[in-house]
Amino acid sequence: MITIAVDAMGGDYAPGEIVKGIEAARDRYLDLSFQLYGLADQVPALIQNSERIEFISVSEVIAMGDEPVKAMRQKKDSSMVQAAQAVHDGRADALFSAGNTGALLSCAIFIVGRLKGVDRPALATALPSFGSQHDQFVFMDLGANAENKPNHLYQYGILGSFYASHVLGYQNPRVGLLNNGAEEDKGDELHKEAHQLMLHTQAFNFVGNVEARELLDGSADVVVADGFSGNTALKAIEGTALTMLKQLKKAILGAGWRGKLGGLLLKPAFKSMAQQLDFNEQGGAVVLGVKAPVVKTHGSAKATAVANTMGQIKTMIDQDLVSDTAAFIVENHEALKVKKSAN
Amino acid sequence: MITIAVDAMGGDYAPGEIVKGIEAARDRYLDLSFQLYGLADQVPALIQNSERIEFISVSEVIAMGDEPVKAMRQKKDSSMVQAAQAVHDGRADALFSAGNTGALLSCAIFIVGRLKGVDRPALATALPSFGSQHDQFVFMDLGANAENKPNHLYQYGILGSFYASHVLGYQNPRVGLLNNGAEEDKGDELHKEAHQLMLHTQAFNFVGNVEARELLDGSADVVVADGFSGNTALKAIEGTALTMLKQLKKAILGAGWRGKLGGLLLKPAFKSMAQQLDFNEQGGAVVLGVKAPVVKTHGSAKATAVANTMGQIKTMIDQDLVSDTAAFIVENHEALKVKKSAN
Repeated sequence: MITIAVDAMGGDYAPGEIVKGIEAARDRYLDLSFQLYGLADQVPALIQNSERIEFISVSEVIAMGDEPVKAMRQKKDSSMVQAAQAVHDGRADALFSAGNTGALLSCAIFIVGRLKGVDRPALATALPSFGSQHDQFVFMDLGANAENKPNHLYQYGILGSFYASHVLGYQNPRVGLLNNGAEEDKGDELHKEAHQLMLHTQAFNFVGNVEARELLDGSADVVVADGFSGNTALKAIEGTALTMLKQLKKAILGAGWRGKLGGLLLKPAFKSMAQQLDFNEQGGAVVLGVKAPVVKTHGSAKATAVANTMGQIKTMIDQDLVSDTAAFIVENHEALKVKKSAN
Repeated sequence: MITIAVDAMGGDYAPGEIVKGIEAARDRYLDLSFQLYGLADQVPALIQNSERIEFISVSEVIAMGDEPVKAMRQKKDSSMVQAAQAVHDGRADALFSAGNTGALLSCAIFIVGRLKGVDRPALATALPSFGSQHDQFVFMDLGANAENKPNHLYQYGILGSFYASHVLGYQNPRVGLLNNGAEEDKGDELHKEAHQLMLHTQAFNFVGNVEARELLDGSADVVVADGFSGNTALKAIEGTALTMLKQLKKAILGAGWRGKLGGLLLKPAFKSMAQQLDFNEQGGAVVLGVKAPVVKTHGSAKATAVANTMGQIKTMIDQDLVSDTAAFIVENHEALKVKKSAN
């Protein structure tokens, strides 16, 4: 039996949609059990069937706008911190929240704890990929780290490669480095040095630089970025997709009867396109490099997205993602240290 | 009479479309004259009417794949270097090319020359803006500089603000800083310090951080980024827009008769949307912070885009962009020095 510690109070639709999603996941995955951390006057009344669902009462909630590290330190009896503590103590196997991303990162790093040998855990997500044999690629770091060193990016290659092979099932995943040019001498010092570290590694299958223009083209199965530009690229992609859908709608509405009829005819086509581009349905963002699966869904996640994310966590555990990553890093400790001293 | 030095050999459709575009501009703008730098066996035969068009023969061409600084130094008799030299010597007022961007930047900085007091000239372009009173915003630096200091970003605010007011005609343009969060303490050290430099400045109208998600929303009239993330964001926007248009086409083609008919009905709506999003038609990218207008159009630019860009250069000169920017920086030399010593 796998036990997932759930922050039932995080997210725009918490606790209602969280509880609903957990009950759906419980019915779908028979080897999952759940601990729901939440306020006693809100959560218990929502649980329809408490089979494999344990409610644990807390007195505080970390808000979306709270300063992450401060919130983690001061709100010790919050749903998120208590859920993280359960994972740290071995009472649960994984941590889930749809709440404050920064606070969840802090809980992952400081309470669940870093894997031995990992300098900077990173936030990763799967984005849609067009034109490769796979329909998703792993993109990281999404902003867990504002300042990066070459060795961090090198380690992201290891962490992302394990995620792609274990959770997405890709064989020998192709790892690329987000950089502002294809040639190996492109970019600032950080990216030039990271490229050199990756170039001769045996730890993963490096395929060179990837430009932001090609991100969605399937040029690589894992794209590694420093936290600042990874965050920038992710948000630029999301913003552009949203803007285009809005402009498309506007153009159709502005086209009179032609627009009305054409829009009606193309509705199924638009819907399938919008689904392919819906990053939120593709599962949660994962903190890689910590001692247990820690997964965050979008703040606006509803029950279905929550339930799907439980399936993602189950795969991470079934496929031994964390233990295999940890073992690799320990086994290659000396080799990785050499890499480290090189910068 | 304004004289523009034209690299007739740069770009995917050079020299044919360049010469055609220059002739169109000559007919459209009666106070413009042109120097066409190109190969004697290719360019003269293309010129239909040599009124206000002077051909200057060169023996070399800088290729798209040439290493920029090396190409500038070694190909001294190339069309690009000779055109830049004419601007440096005062024989021409502005420099235009559709060729190798890096080489043009090098020619701008090392041959045309930096404005006194400007540490790092930057590459800027206008991108479409939806939801603001203006339909474009200025975005910079697009990758002229891989490594930036806080003071560079601060200066970009000055350069971009002058461009928005003089060339786009915006009053008191709102300047934002591309950062990975709205609050002033967000980002890495570079962005935190740049934010502080901008916060209390009198030199431009700073409106705070802008996230990549809001870039196209019209949150600011000028968005300043370090060269690495500016380049990343620009390419992520272009890539996403292209991918979506491709997927839209695919979805329509895959929808049988509904798709065919619907696509036919919506053709004008799609066309107007694609035009709004066509970055290449919005004019060229401009090197700001050098002693004369230096403008680059997309490598795939055809005659119309070339002709439009001549109009953009004419506006830069008519509105005294360079001399007003230079005067401001000289007048505020002491104030800017104080800013500089702060980091």
